[in-house]
Amino acid sequence: MTVFGGVEAGGTKFVCGVGTGPEDLEVVRIPTTRPEETIAQTVAFFRRHPEIEAVGIGSFGPVDLHPESPTFGYITSTPKAGWQNTDLGGEIRRALGVPTGFDTDVNAAALGEARWGAAQGVSDFVYLTVGTGVGGGIVAHGRVLHGLVHPELGHIRVPHDLARDPYPGICPAHGDCLEGLTSGPAMQARWGVPAVELPLDHAAWGLEAHYLALALTTWVCTLSPRLMLLGGGVMQQPHLFPIIRQELSRLLNGYVRAPEILEGLDRFVIPPQLGSRAGVLGALVLAQQAFEAAVPRTASPGIAVLHGENA
Amino acid sequence: MTVFGGVEAGGTKFVCGVGTGPEDLEVVRIPTTRPEETIAQTVAFFRRHPEIEAVGIGSFGPVDLHPESPTFGYITSTPKAGWQNTDLGGEIRRALGVPTGFDTDVNAAALGEARWGAAQGVSDFVYLTVGTGVGGGIVAHGRVLHGLVHPELGHIRVPHDLARDPYPGICPAHGDCLEGLTSGPAMQARWGVPAVELPLDHAAWGLEAHYLALALTTWVCTLSPRLMLLGGGVMQQPHLFPIIRQELSRLLNGYVRAPEILEGLDRFVIPPQLGSRAGVLGALVLAQQAFEAAVPRTASPGIAVLHGENA
Repeated sequence: MTVFGGVEAGGTKFVCGVGTGPEDLEVVRIPTTRPEETIAQTVAFFRRHPEIEAVGIGSFGPVDLHPESPTFGYITSTPKAGWQNTDLGGEIRRALGVPTGFDTDVNAAALGEARWGAAQGVSDFVYLTVGTGVGGGIVAHGRVLHGLVHPELGHIRVPHDLARDPYPGICPAHGDCLEGLTSGPAMQARWGVPAVELPLDHAAWGLEAHYLALALTTWVCTLSPRLMLLGGGVMQQPHLFPIIRQELSRLLNGYVRAPEILEGLDRFVIPPQLGSRAGVLGALVLAQQAFEAAVPRTASPGIAVLHGENA
Repeated sequence: MTVFGGVEAGGTKFVCGVGTGPEDLEVVRIPTTRPEETIAQTVAFFRRHPEIEAVGIGSFGPVDLHPESPTFGYITSTPKAGWQNTDLGGEIRRALGVPTGFDTDVNAAALGEARWGAAQGVSDFVYLTVGTGVGGGIVAHGRVLHGLVHPELGHIRVPHDLARDPYPGICPAHGDCLEGLTSGPAMQARWGVPAVELPLDHAAWGLEAHYLALALTTWVCTLSPRLMLLGGGVMQQPHLFPIIRQELSRLLNGYVRAPEILEGLDRFVIPPQLGSRAGVLGALVLAQQAFEAAVPRTASPGIAVLHGENA
């Protein structure tokens, strides 16, 4: 088994891991301070593991994901002080000298869930995390969706129920976008206490489920996913899932006539399975992808012959 | 040049074409009556063109797009009387005995625009049509997005500005979903006259642009497209485009920091170029895909050698 390194580069900590998968993953956590310091500590950790064949990085963003771009692998216009225009991918790749994969933190988490978690074998799904922020990754035709930049799922617009909820939303850019209405900080600002302290019968949960179900409705109609994973701090309240499913069913109103949606919402909207390790495990998948892109393919003997003929 | 047949199967007419592309396309229109009659006329037209090597069908829906499904190529739960559970793809394929591609009408139109129209060379884009209904196709990583069923872009939820617009929406399933608020029939029901008769300075256009821009905002944040094409009857009002772009810019508020969006919206939100022929031209692309999937690949000499070795 090939051993890879993975980094979930977050705004408060870098979770670095080495291993072949969930069974043997060794993890360290490095506080996110200045880029030079944090990247140096990250590199030092991987240098203690010369057995790694490649490294993958799932980073907070926005990031540049286009291999042909001069700033590929950079953290670009982040609000995090000191981290704008940081060549995270390039610095780690040059320091370690191994193939290096790079994607967003949430795309990495989606890949982790696809390989080892709740989305194994699923070609088309949405991975959403609802916590301090709201974000996610989309897998379509078995590939993470990138496009022009990368998805910013937290910033879609959903109908704001102003009669029931006069709170204006907390997003500095958009006010009442999805993140502005449903993130942990939005719940705390709206209700005056952290979400985790709200009793189970508080009106907050029905409202939260309503907004999240509106977003899921929009993604069902846009992406036609086969599965939706909802994780993150706010979703640690298991009672939210049945309310969200019921509301999603009410909002779709039978329009999408697939048994997975008409009869199987309890398997269609579910929690992820890898918890806080989804990002670093997904980074191992990014490492493997970079590894396989860098070496001549040997999986198919036919293709190997072809390489030989062309060499 | 290989000659293909294409069908845009619509609820009021089937547009059938034969050719290699826009330059030599020969088109006939067949009224959509009973399935037996309309399909027989479609087959009769193609039989007069024995030179066609494959046929593609872009159909009204919902349709079954999964090749492994027993009802692949069927129109499934359509509200159109007599057409439920119609094996459109299978009947045409069996009658003509050539490879037959099958997709939604809007996915076909997206493919047509990608090959010969406004999205040539664009790997990730949204094609939206706003007319009697609202629908569209998504191309991601160069492939039409399918998923569990197929997208139903008209049925996403957007914030309904009830203060400015008390009209409840016309969608039988959802009321004020995107289609319920922005389709031609919604405009006519809201304002009492067909959209085309509303003067250019009527408040209807600003409201229409607002709702469409909300939808585009959500798709920018979900799909990160490189281009958005807006077509259909309602979009035949060219003055809508600048208002939609201005509103999209206001709603995104600088959050997605790509020059294509910050500075280039007049090239990012544009009309399609193939007009009413997008669907049937896209059906030719579906035919070509079916043709290429059915014959051994000969494009690459290396691969051809490989086939020979394995044969």
